[in-house]
Amino acid sequence: MGRQKFYLDKLARFFQIRNLLLRQALAECLGTLILVMFGCGAVAQSVLSGGTHGRFLTINFAFGFAAMLGILICGQISGGHLNPAVTFALCLLGRERWRKFPMYFLFQTIGGFFGAAVIFGMYYDALWDFPGCFNLTDDSSTAGIFATYPAKHLTLVNGFFDQIIGTAALIVCILAIVDPFNNPIPQGLEAFTVGFVVLVIGQSMGFNSGYAVNPARDLGPRLFSAIAGWGTAVFTFRDGWFLVPTFAPFLGAITGTMIYQLMVGFHLEGEVRDREENKNKEENLQLTVSSNPKSNSNGKEANC
Amino acid sequence: MGRQKFYLDKLARFFQIRNLLLRQALAECLGTLILVMFGCGAVAQSVLSGGTHGRFLTINFAFGFAAMLGILICGQISGGHLNPAVTFALCLLGRERWRKFPMYFLFQTIGGFFGAAVIFGMYYDALWDFPGCFNLTDDSSTAGIFATYPAKHLTLVNGFFDQIIGTAALIVCILAIVDPFNNPIPQGLEAFTVGFVVLVIGQSMGFNSGYAVNPARDLGPRLFSAIAGWGTAVFTFRDGWFLVPTFAPFLGAITGTMIYQLMVGFHLEGEVRDREENKNKEENLQLTVSSNPKSNSNGKEANC
Amino acid sequence: MGRQKFYLDKLARFFQIRNLLLRQALAECLGTLILVMFGCGAVAQSVLSGGTHGRFLTINFAFGFAAMLGILICGQISGGHLNPAVTFALCLLGRERWRKFPMYFLFQTIGGFFGAAVIFGMYYDALWDFPGCFNLTDDSSTAGIFATYPAKHLTLVNGFFDQIIGTAALIVCILAIVDPFNNPIPQGLEAFTVGFVVLVIGQSMGFNSGYAVNPARDLGPRLFSAIAGWGTAVFTFRDGWFLVPTFAPFLGAITGTMIYQLMVGFHLEGEVRDREENKNKEENLQLTVSSNPKSNSNGKEANC
Amino acid sequence: MGRQKFYLDKLARFFQIRNLLLRQALAECLGTLILVMFGCGAVAQSVLSGGTHGRFLTINFAFGFAAMLGILICGQISGGHLNPAVTFALCLLGRERWRKFPMYFLFQTIGGFFGAAVIFGMYYDALWDFPGCFNLTDDSSTAGIFATYPAKHLTLVNGFFDQIIGTAALIVCILAIVDPFNNPIPQGLEAFTVGFVVLVIGQSMGFNSGYAVNPARDLGPRLFSAIAGWGTAVFTFRDGWFLVPTFAPFLGAITGTMIYQLMVGFHLEGEVRDREENKNKEENLQLTVSSNPKSNSNGKEANC
Repeated sequence: MGRQKFYLDKLARFFQIRNLLLRQALAECLGTLILVMFGCGAVAQSVLSGGTHGRFLTINFAFGFAAMLGILICGQISGGHLNPAVTFALCLLGRERWRKFPMYFLFQTIGGFFGAAVIFGMYYDALWDFPGCFNLTDDSSTAGIFATYPAKHLTLVNGFFDQIIGTAALIVCILAIVDPFNNPIPQGLEAFTVGFVVLVIGQSMGFNSGYAVNPARDLGPRLFSAIAGWGTAVFTFRDGWFLVPTFAPFLGAITGTMIYQLMVGFHLEGEVRDREENKNKEENLQLTVSSNPKSNSNGKEANC
Repeated sequence: MGRQKFYLDKLARFFQIRNLLLRQALAECLGTLILVMFGCGAVAQSVLSGGTHGRFLTINFAFGFAAMLGILICGQISGGHLNPAVTFALCLLGRERWRKFPMYFLFQTIGGFFGAAVIFGMYYDALWDFPGCFNLTDDSSTAGIFATYPAKHLTLVNGFFDQIIGTAALIVCILAIVDPFNNPIPQGLEAFTVGFVVLVIGQSMGFNSGYAVNPARDLGPRLFSAIAGWGTAVFTFRDGWFLVPTFAPFLGAITGTMIYQLMVGFHLEGEVRDREENKNKEENLQLTVSSNPKSNSNGKEANC
Repeated sequence: MGRQKFYLDKLARFFQIRNLLLRQALAECLGTLILVMFGCGAVAQSVLSGGTHGRFLTINFAFGFAAMLGILICGQISGGHLNPAVTFALCLLGRERWRKFPMYFLFQTIGGFFGAAVIFGMYYDALWDFPGCFNLTDDSSTAGIFATYPAKHLTLVNGFFDQIIGTAALIVCILAIVDPFNNPIPQGLEAFTVGFVVLVIGQSMGFNSGYAVNPARDLGPRLFSAIAGWGTAVFTFRDGWFLVPTFAPFLGAITGTMIYQLMVGFHLEGEVRDREENKNKEENLQLTVSSNPKSNSNGKEANC
Repeated sequence: MGRQKFYLDKLARFFQIRNLLLRQALAECLGTLILVMFGCGAVAQSVLSGGTHGRFLTINFAFGFAAMLGILICGQISGGHLNPAVTFALCLLGRERWRKFPMYFLFQTIGGFFGAAVIFGMYYDALWDFPGCFNLTDDSSTAGIFATYPAKHLTLVNGFFDQIIGTAALIVCILAIVDPFNNPIPQGLEAFTVGFVVLVIGQSMGFNSGYAVNPARDLGPRLFSAIAGWGTAVFTFRDGWFLVPTFAPFLGAITGTMIYQLMVGFHLEGEVRDREENKNKEENLQLTVSSNPKSNSNGKEANC
């Protein structure tokens, strides 16, 4: 055991990365890899088995639990966003620094890319065995394993609206879950709750275009599928549909943030702020009277 | 960052609502919007996809998790009722003030209205693509996305009874979950548990008329569907079926409250009261003997 | 509000039952009613809708969550057994007094009876609408809503063995969950865990005869169905099949208790006992040496 | 009651095993028995009922909850591995002693063997009733109840890769869940989380060869099925396919451990170590200055 511990310690010191942002980005990368691997894996299993080993409900569950596990893996280190739209919303509210945004976006997309690669490798035989694979017709059967494509009934405008609503719903729920002034979810269960959000979005908003609501989850696997054999058609399909799940989620993030803040967030924050200001005022009054300089109102705020 | 924080603070102060009841009503509105959006969204997905993207089980799960998320969003502020029948039951037991009831009812219905509107917008193309949409025949296919309609076998009497039983079951479970003397559910997990209640009601009581058990969830979307194109038929269907899910749940709330209180609640409360009265008696005895005036029995009750 | 509180208090005092055993039995009755109402309701919905509003998986989920909710409703008061076999196993281990057993068995069966009655009332129209209802042929279609009947392939011996295994599995898991020396499940989550046990038993042991594993859940509804119109055939079916789910679970409870105690329980208890005896020995040694009489080893045991 | 307690105590003392490793191995045996009994039971129910009492999703849920329950039963005693690959990964990281590995492997396999035996007994009639049972053709219908067999499209190389990926995903998630420096999952909920990992692996990685990812879960039941009537064909099928789920998971364990440690683990550990070393350095500085010998840095580390 002694020798094993020694080598393990040596390894740990050799590979340790000390740059915080890089470490966080790596964690986001692994988390998104897990999300895409399990999520797209469920789509692959459902599509390739022709429905015997999975249906749409299975995919919903898989994406929900995949999000949960991805957050559990990196939540403590990077916050567990797994989604550039979530990072964007938290930046908008000033809870994350803007310089994190491009770094997270990049590594989340890389994670999505490799997650798709793992699934491609895993189901390589099954893909070759599938009739008409690598053809991206309107049915877009196997390409849909990796990226999302619109259903036939969907126009581009409605698709755009669909992604905005989906992301807004996700952001409203996530903001409620992580709002320190709102619900008292036991620490460590936020990941479960966000997983249920993803699950329910899939169950109610997945029919139009497969609920990407996440630019990294869509762009990373799409890039991979372009390289792996489906070609540039994955980008040119329906006059550049891929732009919708890439950009609409950011608009959705803005919408969701506004709705939550206007209907719940501002009032909760305000209530806490009002209470503190009253307290401070009373204290200042006391201070003026007793001239007691040791009261540290900043420390109290931090404890609230 | 500094400038962003400044503007965010300015926005927060501008939009902050200081009236407590209005804030609570707004929170209920958002919570019910989430409930109806996810729940009716799942119905829409299931109906419009012809069963490929959802079945009845999916709808059950979606309503369960939607209730969970709705409660998480507004629970800390307004109690997370999302349902006038729940508000009614809590008023009956004296745990909420009666003047909250009409306000909550109104805003819950408004939330349901807008939740339905979001789903209508999201699936606009899919609705137009669906054969025979906007016709409210006895099959009532797409109208059933928004409000609930009875199955063919159901008479009005049985339907009334069905809504009473469903709501009573809901209320019994909710009262057990929020009873401070009963089960020790970890704080913050009540929302999950109520979600499971809604899920299981859907799985066992959904065949007759789609388990509305919530006047706001039914009336709000029904109003919307009347405006959106299905017309007044949504109200006149089966000689005013809509009155059943609007009024029966209140009778169910009374029934459920009575059952829980008679079989569990009164005895639990009584036990706690007896214990306190005994304690007070002993203390009074002690007081008479030792005439010690510093014992504060009220403070102790509050701590129990 | 004042007047309402006054009348509520008066009602509470009037209906309060002070006999502990009766109160516990009533709570068990309500818990089992909830279990059977939701569980059998899901069977009814699945059978009567011909599979459109539920399948076997739905029934599994419903029984699992129904058990969870039943335990939540009465767990704090009566322990939340809902099942005479569970009461029996706990009596065997000396954790409940034997005189509770007949009382609990009776009220659990009554709860099952009324749970079935609620479902019968709820689906009254649907039952009459169902072709060939009230005929108990070998298909036993609608009778299976209430009690359990064996599949065609099942012999009586294998059916007996099936109920023993199912109950033993239930008891092993429940003993592990409530063992104070074993797993540290957060307080209040035992109900959820037991619900998952019931769910998984249904998913893996439900094909032979519908996993009653609970004499009260089977006997109560069976009695009701005999009265409600299916007649004495529910008892005479297959030469008295009803005796199997009524008596085999008790043998299963014995088997399960033995397996858990032999493989896990005795060693865990023993470890704790050994540790305490060592501590006591050391203390006695100390006592002999220093003759310090204030050490209270009993108090320490209680704190361990 | 007195006499019962006396005999129970006598029994407990008679059967108590004091050897820690044997006790742990027995607990692993029972845990794996539960895992295989519920998991393979769900496969049996699904196969033998021809899909009416279970589908692939049911099997996924059953294995997930079975893993959860197995861990709950033995987690406190043996760590709840239930899987030699998990034991292997923890040994690799120096968290378990290597001498535990063969003992755990053996008893886990024995648990799997008896779990399969229970299911065989339970569904004995149903198996004989099933057409063409005990024939191990390429369809391998009933043999698949016990051990895993590859789908027709799968080559041996891809199958090997499939088991490596599946196990690596399992190990990455488990390491994140049990990492003391990473996520703060409430104590006692690890079992639930690992259950969800197993569930999601089944939903996304089960199409190729049925996601064994566990040598004991595959080898134990395979041995049993060879004895019970399927013969040596269970080993010779496809030129020794059984070697894949027996050996590939260990490679997967190595891969998964490396990925988690390189992308998350080493940096987290390192951060904690750096912080402690800094603290120690400061303390040493203080020590040199003030020569205060009472500071105990070891004790502080233990509290961190």
